[in-house]
Amino acid sequence: MKNNIAVIGLGSMGYGIASSCLRSGHLVWGLDTNIDQVTKFCKLGGQNSSLNTVINDIDVVLVVVLNSTQTETVLFGEEGVVKKLRSGSVVISCATVAPNFAKDMEKRCKEFGVLYLDAPISGGSVKAANGQLSIMASGTKEAFEAASAALKSISETVFELGDEAGAGSSMKAVNQLLAGVHIAVMAEALTFGISQGISPEKFIETISKCAGTSWMLENRAPHIADGDYEPRSSINIWPKDLGIVLDVAKDAKFNAPITKVALDQFSAAVDMGLGFEDDAAVAKVYAKSAKISLPQKT
Amino acid sequence: MKNNIAVIGLGSMGYGIASSCLRSGHLVWGLDTNIDQVTKFCKLGGQNSSLNTVINDIDVVLVVVLNSTQTETVLFGEEGVVKKLRSGSVVISCATVAPNFAKDMEKRCKEFGVLYLDAPISGGSVKAANGQLSIMASGTKEAFEAASAALKSISETVFELGDEAGAGSSMKAVNQLLAGVHIAVMAEALTFGISQGISPEKFIETISKCAGTSWMLENRAPHIADGDYEPRSSINIWPKDLGIVLDVAKDAKFNAPITKVALDQFSAAVDMGLGFEDDAAVAKVYAKSAKISLPQKT
Repeated sequence: MKNNIAVIGLGSMGYGIASSCLRSGHLVWGLDTNIDQVTKFCKLGGQNSSLNTVINDIDVVLVVVLNSTQTETVLFGEEGVVKKLRSGSVVISCATVAPNFAKDMEKRCKEFGVLYLDAPISGGSVKAANGQLSIMASGTKEAFEAASAALKSISETVFELGDEAGAGSSMKAVNQLLAGVHIAVMAEALTFGISQGISPEKFIETISKCAGTSWMLENRAPHIADGDYEPRSSINIWPKDLGIVLDVAKDAKFNAPITKVALDQFSAAVDMGLGFEDDAAVAKVYAKSAKISLPQKT
Repeated sequence: MKNNIAVIGLGSMGYGIASSCLRSGHLVWGLDTNIDQVTKFCKLGGQNSSLNTVINDIDVVLVVVLNSTQTETVLFGEEGVVKKLRSGSVVISCATVAPNFAKDMEKRCKEFGVLYLDAPISGGSVKAANGQLSIMASGTKEAFEAASAALKSISETVFELGDEAGAGSSMKAVNQLLAGVHIAVMAEALTFGISQGISPEKFIETISKCAGTSWMLENRAPHIADGDYEPRSSINIWPKDLGIVLDVAKDAKFNAPITKVALDQFSAAVDMGLGFEDDAAVAKVYAKSAKISLPQKT
């Protein structure tokens, strides 16, 4: 089924998602505060007309912004879309947010007859561009149905985690806890290895075949070996996402000491001015403290 | 080439290693303070004669004990084998030890004309039994040559990490840092998930296909889902191995805060009387603190 889809947020994830929707033959409106991204997307095949003029014909709104504040603004701010959408259309919300925020958005959408899918994404910008994301989704049966064509265009796997918003965001929080800690401890182990005379190449070659490996280690350690900190996913993501994890944990009176220490490492990286570098740059926190040298880009 | 091999230590790893040597057609003497294990191994095909009566014909001594103290005792204690071994025989030392300890053992073996391979192992008891271990090895060319037939019998992969003892143990320390943290943070994430209504089964099904996965998560999380804490590898390993990591780090003025917090979780598990349970039982530390229930064995 072909849908009329609005993608709000054309960053590294949103642009790939919007492009994947185009490839599936949907009509796609791309929106972003960065006009260059919008223009680029129109050239790729995105619709030129103003979203407001077609808002009654929109089936799906994919919200691919950074956080809960931006999500709330695009949905319910002064220019928010929800109040304009036709009844039965669906919002697919992809940002990492607290489960209670997702529940609140679902409730407020319902007041306008708009369906809501709590649908955080995992997989990075390359998988976004290839329509191969993993989606941790929860929402009503109606929301899943209304979202199904769009989900099919952008994802390889949709985990159906429950019949109301919140469950998707809870699972995303669990995933981010692990992913963030795995990046930070990869940096801890790799730089510890350097202090013992083990080169990053030897580290990757050996550990990726041993019990100490992780998805993040295999994905991010090569960035350090190459001295390449072009942001595929930036340091700034982690104080935000691990902060959400710790807020949710605190509400549940759950103590997450490893997460807290990993967050401290990313915060130290931000303090060093590395916020916009690739998240593998957390290794620089360890290198500075131990006075060891990391590989430079050749 | 068939060797005469002594395997000292017939615990869960050593017994598998000795059995793998038997399957390759070597003559194998199994030694352990636990006579039941020795008897069992003789029934499997191990040699009955006293090691002392054949010590001149021994080519390889595989030391598969728990730690550096036991390693030093079997090599250089009152009944230590090194002084009795013929010149040109090789000690393959498999325990997780500090790199400097391995260097010292190599030096002391050399005084007796005995070769030494620093050869910590990774892979667990099933891979030990199947002759499929990963070995992080370093030592002289002569030591590698003398050890080659035995290594072939017990391992799938031998990482050759350098021409002197120490490098193997350094890489093992790096691997243990990661493996230990990954177990502890898996427990942190899985129990955090329970606090948010995510069952261990749903956790495993979803996260093992997402960016938050790790080798240890996929291997250990099912123990928690099954409520099965029969020790495949026990809690007690980790205060020891992460303690070695932190000692080595301290010597190198390297700060490893995530490792330290993970060690704290395993120490808390020991304090709860869980030292001899499977290391996945570190989840019980989190469950107790957050007052949540873990699955029981059915």
